[in-house]
Amino acid sequence: MKLVLAPDSFKESMTAQEAVEAMSRGVRAVFPDAELVAAPMADGGEGTTAALTAALGGELVTAAAHDALGRPITATYGYVADERLAVVEVAAAAGIDLVAPAERDPLRTSTAGVGQMLLDALDRGARRLVVGLGGSVTNDGGAGMLQALGVRLLDADGAELPPGGGALARLADIDATGLDPRLAALDVEIASDVTNPLCGPEGASAVFGPQKGATPKMVAELDRALGVFAEAVSSATGRDVADRAGAGAAGGLGAAFLAFFDARLRPGVDVVMTAARLEERMAGADLVLTGEGGVDAQTLLGKTPFGVARAASRHGVPVIAFAGHVGDGAELLYDNFFAAIVPIVRSVTDLPTALAQGQVNLERAVETVCRVLALRSTEAFGAGEASRPLSD
Amino acid sequence: MKLVLAPDSFKESMTAQEAVEAMSRGVRAVFPDAELVAAPMADGGEGTTAALTAALGGELVTAAAHDALGRPITATYGYVADERLAVVEVAAAAGIDLVAPAERDPLRTSTAGVGQMLLDALDRGARRLVVGLGGSVTNDGGAGMLQALGVRLLDADGAELPPGGGALARLADIDATGLDPRLAALDVEIASDVTNPLCGPEGASAVFGPQKGATPKMVAELDRALGVFAEAVSSATGRDVADRAGAGAAGGLGAAFLAFFDARLRPGVDVVMTAARLEERMAGADLVLTGEGGVDAQTLLGKTPFGVARAASRHGVPVIAFAGHVGDGAELLYDNFFAAIVPIVRSVTDLPTALAQGQVNLERAVETVCRVLALRSTEAFGAGEASRPLSD
Repeated sequence: MKLVLAPDSFKESMTAQEAVEAMSRGVRAVFPDAELVAAPMADGGEGTTAALTAALGGELVTAAAHDALGRPITATYGYVADERLAVVEVAAAAGIDLVAPAERDPLRTSTAGVGQMLLDALDRGARRLVVGLGGSVTNDGGAGMLQALGVRLLDADGAELPPGGGALARLADIDATGLDPRLAALDVEIASDVTNPLCGPEGASAVFGPQKGATPKMVAELDRALGVFAEAVSSATGRDVADRAGAGAAGGLGAAFLAFFDARLRPGVDVVMTAARLEERMAGADLVLTGEGGVDAQTLLGKTPFGVARAASRHGVPVIAFAGHVGDGAELLYDNFFAAIVPIVRSVTDLPTALAQGQVNLERAVETVCRVLALRSTEAFGAGEASRPLSD
Repeated sequence: MKLVLAPDSFKESMTAQEAVEAMSRGVRAVFPDAELVAAPMADGGEGTTAALTAALGGELVTAAAHDALGRPITATYGYVADERLAVVEVAAAAGIDLVAPAERDPLRTSTAGVGQMLLDALDRGARRLVVGLGGSVTNDGGAGMLQALGVRLLDADGAELPPGGGALARLADIDATGLDPRLAALDVEIASDVTNPLCGPEGASAVFGPQKGATPKMVAELDRALGVFAEAVSSATGRDVADRAGAGAAGGLGAAFLAFFDARLRPGVDVVMTAARLEERMAGADLVLTGEGGVDAQTLLGKTPFGVARAASRHGVPVIAFAGHVGDGAELLYDNFFAAIVPIVRSVTDLPTALAQGQVNLERAVETVCRVLALRSTEAFGAGEASRPLSD
């Protein structure tokens, strides 16, 4: 018997890796000899580095970098030496959680720290990069990252622009001759479910600017600045990326990746599944267990369990999803590749308790499901042999 | 495929019959052609009449009676005409829920209404009686019931005693010549998990008197009165029942049944299972579903799901229990005949919401379990044929 354990994290309760371990204990309680494939998953957002690095047996490493306000930090990313693969979350350096609400100023915040992590990964030998775009506090079009990697962003006087999206309004020329030459050989997969363009009413500034501290006046200013940036990028690279779906992700960082890198932008769970070789590892499996904190009708909109279920369906492997919260419309999943959806709470409970008990609840829910499966394997059920004992 | 649906009620959420119906919907969603045996269960307490009557296809009927304070009421009991079986809960007439807390006076409260229900059942043709002893507000040793059935309880002056346990202190003689002769042919099964004797520190008055309104002084008075009653009963019937286990159940009503009736007192769930012929109906079943509001280590102490599981184990039929609350020690059940224990809550929730959503939550939990079972019947799981589709 072979089971693939491919949960996302259960937000505020356990990481994907912890979920895998809880699932593993639950299965082992019933099927001690089962072959288990540990495949912690993520959707490109928080936890992507930890999950994918664990799934591939890599290690978490650190780089000296700066946060979005230029303060020194130690940024963590993942590195899988066997594959020369770096796994980077933009939020590890340019993250919104690193900047207090009162300090958030999208005119000034910069993605320079992301570039510093990439340089560190290149020094380590990276030839492939998976980057998760979620959780940034920046709106600089990736300008800070490009500068950190050797690109010069110059104003009309030939002076280098200071950090932040606001300064891009004065961008006159881009000199990419200094771009780190190793980037040309770097294969980049961008994990992002955001499909917004760089500018305009659906652009980065208008849609995501306010949650990063932009007032309406700043939104207009930032949108104009990114328009100037897009023009200059087009002139410098010959690539017109402003209207590409996803260019507006992470405050326009998507545009920088698409213009200056050999990069493909895909839904987060697909990028992670591909990098983790999930489908390959599903071959011959009898069952896939997935899950995340909440499962409802929204799960069909690109959440990890749905991605896992679609992949499993291509291989004819049934999927069971576990969740702390099974919400409205979850039944829709039954028509979309899920064999069963199992809530893990065991009683009336408040949220803090449920979050604290997540790992043991998941373990027990998985054990329960395995016990039901084990019923069948005794052949007592359905075969008309009611005389067989049920317990092992 | 044959499934037996044998839940208790989920207290404050749904009756046993409603639980059966919810389970039925859950099974049908996955196995529309399954043979379902509806066997709502009870443990002799609240809901016993409704569950057992439904399980046997009987009807609920009413009798004109009096409550424990002598006020006219319409008491409901169950009657199964095919079997000439009456199902009576003592609480339907002498129940604590019928008497406001301030009115509870165990010196005066009487079981006369229970006798009135029995007369009604005899008039209807009853030859068998199942009686649930839970929930009484009386402490009269069954004196009121006996008087209603024709027994005369006389003081030293030959005058009939007034109602209530207090008056028994003046009991001088019992004249049972007027006892309804049809009672001699009535087969009585008493469902009670109470094993207390009639008198003494473990007796009815000391243990259960306080919750029926007895002060410490009244407890002593009642205990002495029941002692007088026991002496007189022994003289009148030749049966010394005061020390019999269960004589102290329902304020000593157990003693009256044991002395004056052809009665057997057994654990509630066993009485209900026997009367419902549950084991007979389990023959050839593939699975039994049971459950109640809460399941934990206490479930091993005579609760309905454990009784059902023991019975099923004798027939080699696996049992899955469902519960709104799966509490501490529930894992112990895995070593005691339960194949799986499944919580039905689907999310973090408060108690009122969980109770209100009980039926739909139970339906969905049963559907989920059946979906996991159905996985097996596709032969995709465990048979190494990963190429088979999982959905039906």
